[in-house]
Amino acid sequence: MDWTFDHIAQVVPDIAAAVAFYTDLVPGSTVLYQDATWAFVEAGGAKLAFVVRDEHPGHLAWRVSRDELTRQAVKYGKETKLHRDGTESFYIDGPCGQHIEIITFEGSKWELEASDE
Amino acid sequence: MDWTFDHIAQVVPDIAAAVAFYTDLVPGSTVLYQDATWAFVEAGGAKLAFVVRDEHPGHLAWRVSRDELTRQAVKYGKETKLHRDGTESFYIDGPCGQHIEIITFEGSKWELEASDE
Repeated sequence: MDWTFDHIAQVVPDIAAAVAFYTDLVPGSTVLYQDATWAFVEAGGAKLAFVVRDEHPGHLAWRVSRDELTRQAVKYGKETKLHRDGTESFYIDGPCGQHIEIITFEGSKWELEASDE
Repeated sequence: MDWTFDHIAQVVPDIAAAVAFYTDLVPGSTVLYQDATWAFVEAGGAKLAFVVRDEHPGHLAWRVSRDELTRQAVKYGKETKLHRDGTESFYIDGPCGQHIEIITFEGSKWELEASDE
């Protein structure tokens, strides 16, 4: 049942510009991943995600186990989606238009990379 | 120079409804503070702030020392504001309309409460 906050995702017009802005702003920031449509930046303990429009909505994401993801998807009557990095998740609407992602990293490339270290 | 991510603030129409939504969503959530115009909720390691419109903009906040706050305010040419809880901060604009708060908790009621424990 453990939920761990994972990331804050923002829709931005230009991924590289957003990465440059936040890495310049917050001393010691690290770019975890970046391509033309998607990036992850660690900034002072926050994981910031940047996405281009029509990729995902802006959202707050909590990380759960795969079993908990299944339970929550059934609870909310949602289908989950497997993403290109091997994470799997679904979105629900929060108050005032904020979206929420419930996501599992079990079996994703992030988990595999972490176990290689 | 240390920056520590502090909170994610959202403008919501109804503080109590937002608190109820997130505490119901995330198991083990804790209400840190709540009144009619403002609330703080700890949810799975994230500190979520809810504010009513015209109180503050929605934003991402990083916590710094008072000296670093002064340096950053001078760098960005901004005046800082002392808030009712004793924190002091200023806002800058981020990419795509997201606001950023740079805030110090030194001397605030939160720091005083923590030192009483």
